Amino acid sequence: MSFLRKISPLVKNMFLSERDVLSLRAAEIEAEIQQGKRKNYKEVIDLSSGDLHRGGIKPITFVRQVLAACLYPALLEDDSLPLDVKQRADVLLGQCDGGSVGSYSDSCGITQIRHCLSNFITRRDGGVPSSPNNIFITSGSQMALMLMLKLLIQREGSRQTGVLIAVPTYSTFILALVDQGAAIIPYHLCEEQGWTLQVEELRRALYAGRKTCNPVALYICNPGNPTGHIQSRKSIEEVIRFAAEERLFLLVDEVYQSCVYEEDTEFESYKKVLSEMDSTISSTVELASFNSASKGYMGECGLRGGYVELVNLDPAVKEYCRKLFRSSPPVLGQIALDLMTDLPKPGDPSFPTFSEEVQSIKNVISKNACRIQEVFAELTGISCQPLKAGFFVFPCLNLPPRAIKWAKKKQIEPDMLYCLHLLEETGLHVRPGCEFGQRKDSHHFRLFVASQEDIMEDALQRLKTFHTQFMKEFS
Amino acid sequence: MSFLRKISPLVKNMFLSERDVLSLRAAEIEAEIQQGKRKNYKEVIDLSSGDLHRGGIKPITFVRQVLAACLYPALLEDDSLPLDVKQRADVLLGQCDGGSVGSYSDSCGITQIRHCLSNFITRRDGGVPSSPNNIFITSGSQMALMLMLKLLIQREGSRQTGVLIAVPTYSTFILALVDQGAAIIPYHLCEEQGWTLQVEELRRALYAGRKTCNPVALYICNPGNPTGHIQSRKSIEEVIRFAAEERLFLLVDEVYQSCVYEEDTEFESYKKVLSEMDSTISSTVELASFNSASKGYMGECGLRGGYVELVNLDPAVKEYCRKLFRSSPPVLGQIALDLMTDLPKPGDPSFPTFSEEVQSIKNVISKNACRIQEVFAELTGISCQPLKAGFFVFPCLNLPPRAIKWAKKKQIEPDMLYCLHLLEETGLHVRPGCEFGQRKDSHHFRLFVASQEDIMEDALQRLKTFHTQFMKEFS
Repeated sequence: MSFLRKISPLVKNMFLSERDVLSLRAAEIEAEIQQGKRKNYKEVIDLSSGDLHRGGIKPITFVRQVLAACLYPALLEDDSLPLDVKQRADVLLGQCDGGSVGSYSDSCGITQIRHCLSNFITRRDGGVPSSPNNIFITSGSQMALMLMLKLLIQREGSRQTGVLIAVPTYSTFILALVDQGAAIIPYHLCEEQGWTLQVEELRRALYAGRKTCNPVALYICNPGNPTGHIQSRKSIEEVIRFAAEERLFLLVDEVYQSCVYEEDTEFESYKKVLSEMDSTISSTVELASFNSASKGYMGECGLRGGYVELVNLDPAVKEYCRKLFRSSPPVLGQIALDLMTDLPKPGDPSFPTFSEEVQSIKNVISKNACRIQEVFAELTGISCQPLKAGFFVFPCLNLPPRAIKWAKKKQIEPDMLYCLHLLEETGLHVRPGCEFGQRKDSHHFRLFVASQEDIMEDALQRLKTFHTQFMKEFS
Repeated sequence: MSFLRKISPLVKNMFLSERDVLSLRAAEIEAEIQQGKRKNYKEVIDLSSGDLHRGGIKPITFVRQVLAACLYPALLEDDSLPLDVKQRADVLLGQCDGGSVGSYSDSCGITQIRHCLSNFITRRDGGVPSSPNNIFITSGSQMALMLMLKLLIQREGSRQTGVLIAVPTYSTFILALVDQGAAIIPYHLCEEQGWTLQVEELRRALYAGRKTCNPVALYICNPGNPTGHIQSRKSIEEVIRFAAEERLFLLVDEVYQSCVYEEDTEFESYKKVLSEMDSTISSTVELASFNSASKGYMGECGLRGGYVELVNLDPAVKEYCRKLFRSSPPVLGQIALDLMTDLPKPGDPSFPTFSEEVQSIKNVISKNACRIQEVFAELTGISCQPLKAGFFVFPCLNLPPRAIKWAKKKQIEPDMLYCLHLLEETGLHVRPGCEFGQRKDSHHFRLFVASQEDIMEDALQRLKTFHTQFMKEFS
């Protein structure tokens, strides 16, 4: 009896979709280049995922100095490290069992770091109270999202549990839903109006979903991945009111909260907006908000630090959460969260370098956003909604009918075909819209916008050459 | 509608068991001490879990220096760090995307580190080949175990999937099985013969299990937690033959492989023993072996680095694994695994300090093991099998009938009562046998043996005083 026959059908069903040919080909091309095979380009540019450091952005010195000193406390005696770095590391080590980042922590995270996160949230939301008891730290925010799904999704009973998700949504989350046995209820964002979320569309989707499953939760990503939009306060209020009317649990992915580029726009959290609504709503709508050390200007994806804050949940649920979140999260990821939410202040020795570094990263991303829009404006067959926030743009491809026909013949999605050829001919790796969901007969690709300037310029030149050629060939 | 009513019944069922009163009380006592409340002791000694650094053992300098230099590469220019540390950090950084430990890695782990692990396994097993393609790195070995369970356990169909597990087994794993919807099939280790594993007992358990579920896998922990035993080669061969006959998948937890104290005893992996058996067996028995950076002499629990090696699995299964293991493991945990499996060698600048530190940790644990046996020998009502390997002892409590009666009246397990009182009166935190499973009417507790010597001596004195008093009171 082979193990393959033993595999759970649930797991098998997760992977009915094709293999990730794009990533496999990217890895092959890299190997070919290393083996000296001739290409039109020297290396693959990977703008397929949201990873600042892979895109050449340098880590924040303050963060790395504190982390290094926590790992190797002999550095606390080192004259080359600033005083505030050493003080901070000393405090953090005092919060670790046995004074070592090598000890397990409480499975919800280190108590003092949960305090630090709740203070940050209170400041961010202009004084709306936050309690460390409602905060659970995990190995990345996706893990927190998975655990919340596990709480929500009924495996038994005649009707599948349904979760409303946006079209488009990033594929990791779609896979997590399938994995947990949820029914996916798609609602479409309105691309023409800058990927806005419209309540009529939510209602349509919910009522359609009720015919086949039992919808219990609404998932929102704000600022949006892959769309780069940010919701207005009015839009957030509408969504909350809808959730209250329809008794839906709100799962709010707010990992891009610190990345807002549009002038005169500030991130407002769902929790803050909720707290300022009528008390019949503000005290009842159940909400989980997710955040991460991976997606801010720090970009520390590899450390795996994320958390969820729970709002309006029955206290008895917290006991379930405590037990479900039962594995100690990586301690250095937790420290990264602490540093992200309690930054150097004016007057601190690390402040000048720190603020210079953050400003420089912000500038790079803003410049990239402008350059991307400029380049797209020059090209026929690509249009793009304004990029306001987050790490990605999701431009629309208006492909020639011949290209679409060819793709159909090859039994491949047209934007996948586009991305495969873009990779093959220029070495630029981006992801096709078909992975995220999109309106029928529309085509897109997702591009990471937060890479170093020269890498972005190189990527845009490759895209420009390829796109012009592709459109010509198929026109 | 409250969220509590929405919670999946599967999750609810996980937690029918009582709250962890012991840990809650330990935390309360710590808070009381901080608030200045008078106790017979200055602090809680926590020997409840397997955590070297919490127990006062110092981290290995070489490991921490390399990790610090990876986080803060300016240290590569630092004269105070040894040359081999800097070279190693430089190589490791070259294996990280964008040269930063802050980037995501491949979800199976960094390719070169998987190579390093396979080389280590080949050396460990005296040349038995190992391929990096069969190795998957995760955020701790428990995560790898969870993912393997997910592959194995059928959620649908009329019969529950069954997994054979030892009595006693640590509770995290029992919870993971319940969590995944598995039926638990308990087999008893033979305490009187040093917690040996006997095939007749495995067969009895399997046949009993087949009446109620569909057993597909056998879980082994060798060296054992909480039992401190290590299997002989003969015993391993018997188990493998049994698995072959009964077509069971072997899940082998070998995280304590580097912690063997008994003289003239060496750890032999299931994979090595399997490879040397008859080819009808060696080429067919499916096996997953787990290891971790948390449980060796390095004790880096907080970094969360574990892995699984798969043996004899259908190549098609690896594609499933690749997709199921879809979250990037913590990069520093991966580096810890690399360092654990490729240590400084004689002649390297770091070697003298490194080998001194490792030897000193080994000495501490050996001395502790002797002292524990000495103290237990002095006490009536405690008996203990020889401690041969791993991080724990699991002594048997021969409690007076009056103590058992009192516990029954209080509707609490007798060894839980013992542990609660031990904590209350002396501040020593150990775990009761009832959490691990034990033969009816037998009682135990689990004690972590790898703490600093003075902490262990303090703990043993507390235990001695308490135990003597307890036995007197109830005799």
